[in-house]
Amino acid sequence: MTARALTGPVLVVGAGLLGTSIGLALRRHGVPVLLTDVNAPNLTLATGLGAGEEWDGVRDVELVVVAVPPDHLADEISRFLGCSAAVVTDVGSVKSAPLRQVAARVDAATLRRYVGSHPMAGSERSGPFAASGVLFDGRPWAVVPHPGADPGAVSLVTELARLCGATPVTLSPAEHDLAVARTSHLPHLVAALMAGRLTEAPEDHLALSGQGVRDVTRVAAGDPGLWQQIISANADAVAELLGDVRADLDRLLTAVREGERGSLGELLERGRAGTAAIPGKHGGPAQVLGELYVAVPDHPGELARLFSDASEIGVNIEDVHIDHDPGRPVGVVELAVAEDRVDLLQESLEARGWTTHR
Amino acid sequence: MTARALTGPVLVVGAGLLGTSIGLALRRHGVPVLLTDVNAPNLTLATGLGAGEEWDGVRDVELVVVAVPPDHLADEISRFLGCSAAVVTDVGSVKSAPLRQVAARVDAATLRRYVGSHPMAGSERSGPFAASGVLFDGRPWAVVPHPGADPGAVSLVTELARLCGATPVTLSPAEHDLAVARTSHLPHLVAALMAGRLTEAPEDHLALSGQGVRDVTRVAAGDPGLWQQIISANADAVAELLGDVRADLDRLLTAVREGERGSLGELLERGRAGTAAIPGKHGGPAQVLGELYVAVPDHPGELARLFSDASEIGVNIEDVHIDHDPGRPVGVVELAVAEDRVDLLQESLEARGWTTHR
Repeated sequence: MTARALTGPVLVVGAGLLGTSIGLALRRHGVPVLLTDVNAPNLTLATGLGAGEEWDGVRDVELVVVAVPPDHLADEISRFLGCSAAVVTDVGSVKSAPLRQVAARVDAATLRRYVGSHPMAGSERSGPFAASGVLFDGRPWAVVPHPGADPGAVSLVTELARLCGATPVTLSPAEHDLAVARTSHLPHLVAALMAGRLTEAPEDHLALSGQGVRDVTRVAAGDPGLWQQIISANADAVAELLGDVRADLDRLLTAVREGERGSLGELLERGRAGTAAIPGKHGGPAQVLGELYVAVPDHPGELARLFSDASEIGVNIEDVHIDHDPGRPVGVVELAVAEDRVDLLQESLEARGWTTHR
Repeated sequence: MTARALTGPVLVVGAGLLGTSIGLALRRHGVPVLLTDVNAPNLTLATGLGAGEEWDGVRDVELVVVAVPPDHLADEISRFLGCSAAVVTDVGSVKSAPLRQVAARVDAATLRRYVGSHPMAGSERSGPFAASGVLFDGRPWAVVPHPGADPGAVSLVTELARLCGATPVTLSPAEHDLAVARTSHLPHLVAALMAGRLTEAPEDHLALSGQGVRDVTRVAAGDPGLWQQIISANADAVAELLGDVRADLDRLLTAVREGERGSLGELLERGRAGTAAIPGKHGGPAQVLGELYVAVPDHPGELARLFSDASEIGVNIEDVHIDHDPGRPVGVVELAVAEDRVDLLQESLEARGWTTHR
C-alpha cells in the first residue's frame, strides 16, 4: 500500500501529554494542527507551546486524533465520526473495549473511518507541560485497524505515527490488548505492588535505596486515576497475567521459605531470559556504544572545555551523563560514543590533560 | 568519634565488580591497595585497570575488604581475622547470617576487629570489567557493626566508605537485613517475576515494549547464581515481605476480576506514595532542578558551542540528556540546571540563536 501523505489540518482532541506532544511533532513538519480541550488552561498552555492553533469548530479536517482519558474515548471518537467526514484515530492504551462501544453507536460505513492507534511513549509526568515534540522518536506506535477499516484511513494513521518519529507496528485490537497487558499494564501493577511495600518502611531503611528499587518502581508514580481506567478497560487480559504471576509467586514463596535453591534459581534464570527478550530500544539492532568517564571540576567553564575538546577531536557524543554530587569539587561525566571511537577519544582527551577512565 | 584516617595498605579479597571498584576508588586517593582472587584472569584484569597491586601474601595490612560471593563470605572473613591483625570488613549484601557463622569460628577478642559493611551500588553487569572508581559516588554505604565491634574498627570502615565517595549509614545487622530485604531483594524478585512473563510472549507483542517495562525488569538481568545466594542468606526477611506482596496481589486480582475500581485505585495510590517515599538520589534533600530543552544539530561542533554558550552565560549545568535519534538531523538536548536559573539560561540561549523549549 502506498503511504498516504498527511497534509492536515489535524484536529487534536485533548491537549494533555500525548495530544500536545503530537501537535508539537506535527508542527515541526509544518502540518497545520488544531487543538481543543475541555480544560481551558491546558489548551492555552498547549497552543502557547506551539502545538497548534485553538480549534474554532470547523469540521473540514483531514484527521481527528482523540487524546482523552480512557473513560471518554468512545464518546469522543463517536462524536467526531458523526460530526465530520475526517478519518478518526485515538491514542488510548486499550483498543477492544472502545471499539465495541463505538461500533454500537455508529453505522458500519462510518466505522470504516475509525482506526485506533497507540503510541508506546509516555511519562510518569502528565499534562501539556511535560509534552515534547520528540516524545515519540524511535518508539513503537501501534496502528490497530478493525477488520472493516478503510485501507486509506489505515495508511493515514500509519503516516501520523511516522511523522511523529515513531515506528508503526500493525496489530489487531485483540492482539494489541494482549500485548500491552503484558508489556505495559502488568509492569505497572507489579511496580505498584512493590512501591506499596515501601510506604510502611522506616526512614533509615529507605536510606539504603539504590538505583534498582528506583527503576523497578518508577512507573508506579504515574497518575492513579488514569491507570485505574486503563487497567479496568483491559481487565480480562490483565487478570489472566496476574493469575500467572500469582502462581509463580506461590512457587517463589515456597522456594524461599523451604530453602529450595533449585526452584529459586529457575525463577531467577527465567527472569534474566525475559529481560533479554525485550528488543533493542529503537526497535532495531541497537547501535553499539562505548563509555568513557572523565573527571570534570564542577564549575561552568570546564564542561564547555570538555565538549569543545571532544569536538576538536572529531568524535560525536551520543549521550552524556553527569554524576553530580554537590559535596565534591570534581564531578564525573560519562560520555557515550560509538564503540570504535572510545580509544581515540580517551587518548586524545588524556593528551589534553583530562583524567579519564573506561 | 574522631574519624580514623585510612592510610593502607588495604587488601581487597575478590577482584569482581565491587572489589575492583573499591581498589580503583582508593587508588584515586593514593591509598596502597593489594588485590587477590582465586580467579587469575579477574586478578590480572583488575591490576591492569589500576585497581591495585597483586597481593604477595604479606599480612601486615591495615584493612582487609572481603568482596567474594555470599556463600564464601564467612570462610574468607574468618580466615583473614585469623591470619592477620588487620581490621576486616566485607561488602556482602546480607549481614546477620555471615556474622553468626564467623562468630562461631573465632573468639570474641578477634571478632572485635570485624565490622561488616554493604555499599548500595552495583550493576546488572558483573566482574572487574564493569568496575568503576566512581561506582560508589553519592551512594549509601551501610556500615554494620555488631555490638562487640571495636570503635576504631568501625571508624576505619566508615572512612573506607567515605574515601570511596559514598555516604555511610550505620545500622545493626538485623536492621540492615530487614532494610535490604525491602529495598533490594524484594525489588529484584518482583522484577524477576515480571520479566519471567515476557519469556512466553510472541515477538510482535514484545515489539510494543516501552521504557516502562525495561525499567521495571532491568535488575532481573543480574547474575542468577549470585542472587540465589543473596536471597537464600536473607530468606526469613524476604519471605515475610513476599507474603505481604501475595496478600496485596490477591486483593488486586479480585479488584481487577470483579471490576472493583475503588480497591484498584487504593492499590495504585499506595504505589504512588511508595515512589515518593524514596529519598533523593544523594541521600539528602534533592536539589530543585529545572529542565530546558534545546534543539541541537547533530554534528560535533554544535554541542561544544552550546556548552560554551551556557558557560559564558554563567549557568552551571547539573545534568544533560541527549535524546539521540540517528535518523534525524536535529537532536534535542535536555539541560538540567538550578530551577531559578532556567529563565536566565533560556533567554540568553534564545538571544544567541538557539531554539529552546521548557
